[in-house]
Amino acid sequence: MTPEDYAKAIFSGDRVILAKSISLVESNRFEDQKMAHRLLKLCLPRTRNSIRLAITGMPGAGKSTFIERFANYLISQERKKVAVLAVDPSSLRTGGSILGDKTRMPTLATNPKAFIRPSPSSGNMGGLAFCSRESMILCEAAGYNTILIETVGVGQSETMVHSMVDFFLLLTLAGGGDILQGIKRGIIEAADALVVTKADGANIQRAKEAQMEYQSALGLALPKDSGWKPPVLVCSAQENKGIIEIYQMIQNYLNKTIQNGYFEKNRKNQYLAWIRESMEQKLRRNLNYFFIQPEVQMYQKELAQKAATGKMSPTEGGESLLMKYYENHSKFYEKFQKLS
Amino acid sequence: MTPEDYAKAIFSGDRVILAKSISLVESNRFEDQKMAHRLLKLCLPRTRNSIRLAITGMPGAGKSTFIERFANYLISQERKKVAVLAVDPSSLRTGGSILGDKTRMPTLATNPKAFIRPSPSSGNMGGLAFCSRESMILCEAAGYNTILIETVGVGQSETMVHSMVDFFLLLTLAGGGDILQGIKRGIIEAADALVVTKADGANIQRAKEAQMEYQSALGLALPKDSGWKPPVLVCSAQENKGIIEIYQMIQNYLNKTIQNGYFEKNRKNQYLAWIRESMEQKLRRNLNYFFIQPEVQMYQKELAQKAATGKMSPTEGGESLLMKYYENHSKFYEKFQKLS
Repeated sequence: MTPEDYAKAIFSGDRVILAKSISLVESNRFEDQKMAHRLLKLCLPRTRNSIRLAITGMPGAGKSTFIERFANYLISQERKKVAVLAVDPSSLRTGGSILGDKTRMPTLATNPKAFIRPSPSSGNMGGLAFCSRESMILCEAAGYNTILIETVGVGQSETMVHSMVDFFLLLTLAGGGDILQGIKRGIIEAADALVVTKADGANIQRAKEAQMEYQSALGLALPKDSGWKPPVLVCSAQENKGIIEIYQMIQNYLNKTIQNGYFEKNRKNQYLAWIRESMEQKLRRNLNYFFIQPEVQMYQKELAQKAATGKMSPTEGGESLLMKYYENHSKFYEKFQKLS
Repeated sequence: MTPEDYAKAIFSGDRVILAKSISLVESNRFEDQKMAHRLLKLCLPRTRNSIRLAITGMPGAGKSTFIERFANYLISQERKKVAVLAVDPSSLRTGGSILGDKTRMPTLATNPKAFIRPSPSSGNMGGLAFCSRESMILCEAAGYNTILIETVGVGQSETMVHSMVDFFLLLTLAGGGDILQGIKRGIIEAADALVVTKADGANIQRAKEAQMEYQSALGLALPKDSGWKPPVLVCSAQENKGIIEIYQMIQNYLNKTIQNGYFEKNRKNQYLAWIRESMEQKLRRNLNYFFIQPEVQMYQKELAQKAATGKMSPTEGGESLLMKYYENHSKFYEKFQKLS
């Protein structure tokens, strides 16, 4: 199959080919990467008019249930198709699980207007976000006009995901300031809205108290470039309450930021971040190629020998190695390019 | 104070200056880095005859109690001084805590022959291990001839720490194969010995069963370059049992690997890894400097504009940016050198 064949199938809504294309994007093989790049170029012009939302929260905050309800609501209300992409660095450890991701959102997994993609299981965290950017483009080209990016709010992935989306939603449980302390400050500052989940049964009163408490905490934060003041909402995914309000709040955000130009500015920044990530990924690959060259390995050993015998500090050794890299980068880069 | 003053104070056993020197090493300030480098050069020749041990285990495996007992035993038996360095990436979240590290090893913290240093709280994980390497050198120059590096066996830090030490000890609880499954395969493969902790009271029988189970699991592993077969021991730090046996086992390891040449070979590899880390750290700093140049930022914006309007893919943008970096690296590198 040529990239053009892939693109045609994606545009026609072929879910199997979409899934295969994402695997192509996630692959580390040179041939796959080459294919993926040509496919992405074909898909990029078709990515207008999509909305990209990040949904994050600590484990146990009820992300799966919320996403399932929210996505089903989106699909029921408008001409919307929803893609859910998970970016979960913790799945690196367990190797991830497609089945796991599909069974935890059962009604969504069987909805023809929804597409669920579990975490890529390979690569480092930088690579993870990078893949997700490209997967997002593929989904948008396949007609999914709302992309939900799910992350677990405990690590570095949120910062990266923040530079990928139009709106950043943080889910949290009721439980006073202690709960918020468990979440990194950067994530709270990045949030465009906070939602207190599981506001049902005996928990309603606590959820409302938490809402007030979080709201006053957020009131102390610096104003955002978007001109938007992050609100705190409550919801019960179980009882299907609060979902419409969250949807309307996000609509308000979009209206406001499209009007004041922030939406477009933010999209441009997303491309800026993407280009930089792409540059760094290439540099990383080139560097890995540098390190496996026999002449480089021999040079490293010489330096280590000097360091071990006290003739040179390891820092000076690092300096010399970096100089060798700079002097020879084009050589390694050309070799690397040929390979790719 | 000059680096020479620092060095003199360190050699004379001044603990306050040692602590200050480690802070220098951990600092990101250019001036501090320059000082640190000169200080390290003075300290490097004094680092012979030390033993470097990594002690890792999941949270709850009893690392603190074990380290306290083990270090006190070392100090009581021989002319040994022990430095404990923690490398805990999870402390990045809480910001680390000096008090925390000292109160969890109360008898060690007050022992004049022991020096405890909590996790560096800044920098990325690569930086963490890098700091620890340099801190280790400073402690050795101060006369601490046994270095215990403590890590939490859940992340990437173990791989880095493995390339810093002579011996890698994994602590684990009794609890069958399930417990080992929670630990990354790479950590188990890196271990030179496994110790089942908390083998006391009603737990003794389970600990002994676990010992046999783990031993047969390790029997399936590939032979190590060191020619050493990792044993499984049990201990009770609480009842002070098994500590001597662990000490003797490590002595056996050292005797064997010094005799067969592996110890020296491994030390050389430690320098290899150190040089590479140093090179990558410099590259990272240089790259950060590149990204903050106004002309680079302008170029990035041009590329992003092209990507946003579909004239260029973000991948091609990344390529162009990398080319700009390679073409100008010496310019940025020189500027960067002047700053540093």
